[in-house]
Amino acid sequence: MAKVVSLEGKRKAPSLEPLLALCADDMARVDREILHRMRSPVTLIPELANHLVGAGGKRLRPLLTVAAARLCGYAADDDRHVKLATCVEFIHSATLLHDDVVDVSVLRRGRPTANSVWGDKASVLVGDFLFTRSFELMVDVGSLDILGVLSRASSTIAEGEVLQLVTQRDISTPEATYLEVIKAKTAKLFAAAAEVGAIVAGRNGPERVALESFGMNLGIAFQLVDDALDYAGREAALGKTVGDDFREGKITLPVILSFLRGGAVDRAFWRRTIEKLDQRDGDLLQAQILIERNNALTDTFERARHYGAMARDAMGLFGDSPLKSALLEAVDFAIDRAH
Amino acid sequence: MAKVVSLEGKRKAPSLEPLLALCADDMARVDREILHRMRSPVTLIPELANHLVGAGGKRLRPLLTVAAARLCGYAADDDRHVKLATCVEFIHSATLLHDDVVDVSVLRRGRPTANSVWGDKASVLVGDFLFTRSFELMVDVGSLDILGVLSRASSTIAEGEVLQLVTQRDISTPEATYLEVIKAKTAKLFAAAAEVGAIVAGRNGPERVALESFGMNLGIAFQLVDDALDYAGREAALGKTVGDDFREGKITLPVILSFLRGGAVDRAFWRRTIEKLDQRDGDLLQAQILIERNNALTDTFERARHYGAMARDAMGLFGDSPLKSALLEAVDFAIDRAH
Repeated sequence: MAKVVSLEGKRKAPSLEPLLALCADDMARVDREILHRMRSPVTLIPELANHLVGAGGKRLRPLLTVAAARLCGYAADDDRHVKLATCVEFIHSATLLHDDVVDVSVLRRGRPTANSVWGDKASVLVGDFLFTRSFELMVDVGSLDILGVLSRASSTIAEGEVLQLVTQRDISTPEATYLEVIKAKTAKLFAAAAEVGAIVAGRNGPERVALESFGMNLGIAFQLVDDALDYAGREAALGKTVGDDFREGKITLPVILSFLRGGAVDRAFWRRTIEKLDQRDGDLLQAQILIERNNALTDTFERARHYGAMARDAMGLFGDSPLKSALLEAVDFAIDRAH
Repeated sequence: MAKVVSLEGKRKAPSLEPLLALCADDMARVDREILHRMRSPVTLIPELANHLVGAGGKRLRPLLTVAAARLCGYAADDDRHVKLATCVEFIHSATLLHDDVVDVSVLRRGRPTANSVWGDKASVLVGDFLFTRSFELMVDVGSLDILGVLSRASSTIAEGEVLQLVTQRDISTPEATYLEVIKAKTAKLFAAAAEVGAIVAGRNGPERVALESFGMNLGIAFQLVDDALDYAGREAALGKTVGDDFREGKITLPVILSFLRGGAVDRAFWRRTIEKLDQRDGDLLQAQILIERNNALTDTFERARHYGAMARDAMGLFGDSPLKSALLEAVDFAIDRAH
């Protein structure tokens, strides 16, 4: 499968490091704000929240917010951009907590999920707490414009989660519906994260539109690659496990394309394993073979590159700078990570 | 048990009807706004939400918002008070959906719960949708002051739910902790509902403080009575079932007082039934007998009357009017309902 993920002649694997280095001070403040805002006299709340939030994910979404703000010249001597980045991470964390309950997941980033340690009830309620805390943070920042962006994004995520639930295990889900789901549940928050960075920096014109578009397209590319990696057979990289989506009967693009392009025997296989969730030993390998045979993985990465290209182009109006380069490299990283 | 709930010489049972009649036009608009805001292309959302929201509860919280606004002379030719009332009902509905999942409830108001019809996953996610939709409504209204009140209230509710979860089945929960829980999970939203009515009417001084206090004390009284009625043995009234809290091992004031005042045998009974949830036929009746013997029900109603009196006194600064009388009668109704 290595050929589908070739680096196309590039010398060095793209990395998130330049962006992380340029935003290190801001992100350290975001870390402190996260810890501060998780506090509660009800000790289960910081305990459970810290298990997830402190687990050291990439913090890609808050990183987008502070980077967008700085790219737009944010230089205020306050912490509004830090609060917004924290807010974005809390919205994301809340949805992860609820997702893991809904998906009955036991592992996330190689560690036990909060629901598997503290139970579904605690995860639902602490998720609610993080959701509401995120709104307190937005209100603190005090911009109705920003509140509009983030409240609409939150609502879209929730709508997307329900849409995903109702399309679950429906093998005839069209690609367009799949795209709606990943836009709503992933890309919309990337878009909002970048957009509010522009707004807090006072750039409400083309920069705001550009960053919203950058975030949206980056988010779509990111999720497409995530969904591809679930079948890519390279467990080691990123600590990502392979086959989770398959075992849950999740409808992702590799499966959709493989089903559409396959013959009667292939389709029967997908109906049994995904729709009926009747899975046997060797089925995951068989799924990977069918996906490979139908170029479904290659083309999922291809689709990701398309959105990645749009993300890059959206940045055209910004002048050259190390930060802009780092953001563009982050797009390449989102697509070429794990290779 | 009738003597503990006597009407103390009053001629007529207090009713919510006068308040409902005075606010009928506004509440009809709230009904329409609720239906409008539940819409989504994802049909499961309005379907599930309508099952709960359309089930015809008392709509006490949105009623408080429109009544408070009108009492404060709200006369604007717009629908901000209607949006806020809808917002308050959505916050309440979202917490009910999540509560029923957390409590594994199968019946609410005598009908199957949403989770028992559509499953836990759908209830969690549609709850999230209603939560986020409520924030969109607040943002629509456009007052940062109101956003602050409602986002803090939401966060407090979530914190209260977690606190309730961790104290669940701990028979040595002190009354003070119980009071914190019901303030956070019930009374805070009553308080916010009334307070935002004052704010939207432009009354940010003593009227706002008074209405916040009115709502808070009414909410505490309301929840105390709710918790008492669960042991009051009168199933017919209000369609409320008896014994739900007992069966779930919920720590409410009748149980706390009964445990504190009881001897060793009583305490062993509570430890077995509530802490270990080891319940047998006849245990509910035995619980009711112990509660009666220790005056725990009488005194729970007594506590409710105390908070009811504070709610009434908070209204002292408003001049006499049919609306004020109706709000005071609503306090009496909250305490004397079902008798």
